[in-house]
Amino acid sequence: MMYEEKKFAIPELTGLSKVSIDAHLGLYAGYVKNFNAISALLPEYAKESEKNAHALSELIRRRSFEFDGMRLHELYFSQFEGGSRSLEAGSPLAKQLEKEYMKAEHIEPYLKMIGQMRGPGWAILYFDPQAKQFLTGFAGEQHQGHFATLPIILALDVWEHAYLGDFGTQGKGAYIDAFFKNLNWSVLEQRFAEANK
Amino acid sequence: MMYEEKKFAIPELTGLSKVSIDAHLGLYAGYVKNFNAISALLPEYAKESEKNAHALSELIRRRSFEFDGMRLHELYFSQFEGGSRSLEAGSPLAKQLEKEYMKAEHIEPYLKMIGQMRGPGWAILYFDPQAKQFLTGFAGEQHQGHFATLPIILALDVWEHAYLGDFGTQGKGAYIDAFFKNLNWSVLEQRFAEANK
Amino acid sequence: MMYEEKKFAIPELTGLSKVSIDAHLGLYAGYVKNFNAISALLPEYAKESEKNAHALSELIRRRSFEFDGMRLHELYFSQFEGGSRSLEAGSPLAKQLEKEYMKAEHIEPYLKMIGQMRGPGWAILYFDPQAKQFLTGFAGEQHQGHFATLPIILALDVWEHAYLGDFGTQGKGAYIDAFFKNLNWSVLEQRFAEANK
Amino acid sequence: MMYEEKKFAIPELTGLSKVSIDAHLGLYAGYVKNFNAISALLPEYAKESEKNAHALSELIRRRSFEFDGMRLHELYFSQFEGGSRSLEAGSPLAKQLEKEYMKAEHIEPYLKMIGQMRGPGWAILYFDPQAKQFLTGFAGEQHQGHFATLPIILALDVWEHAYLGDFGTQGKGAYIDAFFKNLNWSVLEQRFAEANK
Repeated sequence: MMYEEKKFAIPELTGLSKVSIDAHLGLYAGYVKNFNAISALLPEYAKESEKNAHALSELIRRRSFEFDGMRLHELYFSQFEGGSRSLEAGSPLAKQLEKEYMKAEHIEPYLKMIGQMRGPGWAILYFDPQAKQFLTGFAGEQHQGHFATLPIILALDVWEHAYLGDFGTQGKGAYIDAFFKNLNWSVLEQRFAEANK
Repeated sequence: MMYEEKKFAIPELTGLSKVSIDAHLGLYAGYVKNFNAISALLPEYAKESEKNAHALSELIRRRSFEFDGMRLHELYFSQFEGGSRSLEAGSPLAKQLEKEYMKAEHIEPYLKMIGQMRGPGWAILYFDPQAKQFLTGFAGEQHQGHFATLPIILALDVWEHAYLGDFGTQGKGAYIDAFFKNLNWSVLEQRFAEANK
Repeated sequence: MMYEEKKFAIPELTGLSKVSIDAHLGLYAGYVKNFNAISALLPEYAKESEKNAHALSELIRRRSFEFDGMRLHELYFSQFEGGSRSLEAGSPLAKQLEKEYMKAEHIEPYLKMIGQMRGPGWAILYFDPQAKQFLTGFAGEQHQGHFATLPIILALDVWEHAYLGDFGTQGKGAYIDAFFKNLNWSVLEQRFAEANK
Repeated sequence: MMYEEKKFAIPELTGLSKVSIDAHLGLYAGYVKNFNAISALLPEYAKESEKNAHALSELIRRRSFEFDGMRLHELYFSQFEGGSRSLEAGSPLAKQLEKEYMKAEHIEPYLKMIGQMRGPGWAILYFDPQAKQFLTGFAGEQHQGHFATLPIILALDVWEHAYLGDFGTQGKGAYIDAFFKNLNWSVLEQRFAEANK
């Protein structure tokens, strides 16, 4: 089954220009397209599986780059839908953040620090439903170093395409600040409710 | 919160010796220990976060190697618990496999092919609850190339430590056959029920 | 011994703006700085090597990202020094390219195809002095997938920072064309002479 | 041009059994074979380059795994040829090691520490002819994280296949000790002379 490009109702954002967001959405569309293209190639090559064994292997190895590029960008853009909204005091997400980070607002500078790590990738807040706790991590490119199976509460894109247009090559910090200004925490609260049920 | 090493009630297996399984369990314990060790270092280094910025980054980058090594091995060993048991005809898992692979038993040679890919890692059957379909993939080492967030139905370890002791350096294929002989499909049926609810 | 940022006499280029090149040179400086910073941390942490074992490991693992970022950018920028200059007909480099690719000019579309590969990295023309032949490859980020030890004849940066400013998120192809327009092949001829002696 | 499997005159070794070395040589042969196989596929797929664009990309991305597996194993096995031999006091290699590590023998525990890093790969002593200094590093699997272009003086395989047979899953340290016992330093002295000319 092929995946379809989703549409996002992204309001006007502070600091992140429409031009940049539109270009970014274009890159997202590329992940969907390429994931589908690779998926379609697999049965094609499998018709002569011995001759194409190496190609099959490497396409299978690579699909997660495209899939994660698709899924992470969907998590990313939907965080802006509905417009900027603070974390609700006393919400289950707020309580869990307080429990683990003393104050809920400590998570922002912590994720900013992770976002400042060198190289293209994502700063991510995962939740482990088994241990009932958060795990923060950095996923290189789209697909390297994820905590396997864990649901994602917050996904912060720190590829160059996310900030170069609006903030320049040295502007990752300013971009991350803008990201948090535009974040709709109620989306994250829903994700947490889903992950923690 | 620290993670604890789990214990598995692994019966006598066909082709996989107790010596190998015990050594393998010892490696699993190492992932738990090292994940906890790195997690404990983070707040330690964070006390002087500027001076230790590079160390913090690289420990954060690396934690998924240990976490995934822990979690994947837990998925792996629990697949043997209860002893070898076939897929139940007509079960939801069987039906979904039939829907996507024509016959449920086609998944075995397909995962074997993925397991034969070069390099240490895992052949994995994921299920995407959004698209309601399986995705098969290869995760390099423990942490490279996972389909982000997707629950795992079957995890097949193809690191050298999984087969060298019993089957030798050229014995990966024989090992994979043995793996499937010992698999308790009812464990996978439970995972599928959980992933698809 | 610390490494020093090199200075490059880059002429006015066609299609690549001074603003973009200056920003790119700033990123290069970051690789030099961070390689030196990590190298300085190693003996520091080694004073308590047991306590800092994980940090030492991960800093050692990461140094090549910074080193290769430094060295590859030096290869990149020096290719523009002296201004655009064609491959000299009959030069040893031209002869070797003809021998392997029929016509020397075939290497350009081939490297362009490699440069179009998905993800940040480098399209690279290596020369293997043992086999006396070229190898073309793609290095992910700065440090993933190099042909170990092989000297580099041509290094084409295809990170987003190389083309986003002048060509936009969909402009990688136009950027690669501009890169080849500005290339000083005599620099490559010298590298080849060095690699093949 | 295809690569050919080299033959090594490996004497009886201390601690490393002939069975293990022979199995290890069999794996080396696999890298040569697979590098050649992928190289042969490229022009084949290139005949329909548009249709096969994804396969071409991923085969190009993967070739370094095979090439480096080939080249590193050649560096590895040739270090045993001629039998165990100490570093010659006062040799250029000895002097350079003293200059950088106080005592030449300090390099051994340092490389052992690197070899103990988690995950399959190589502990490597490189020499940078530009800076006239050593760089020590860890290359993941065969191809991740090399210092680009740098010649290799010493290559220590720490994949599981290198030590599991003779030393067991917990025997990496004992294996590394055995490796150094069998090392012919005069091979390294020749490499250094070559790298430093």
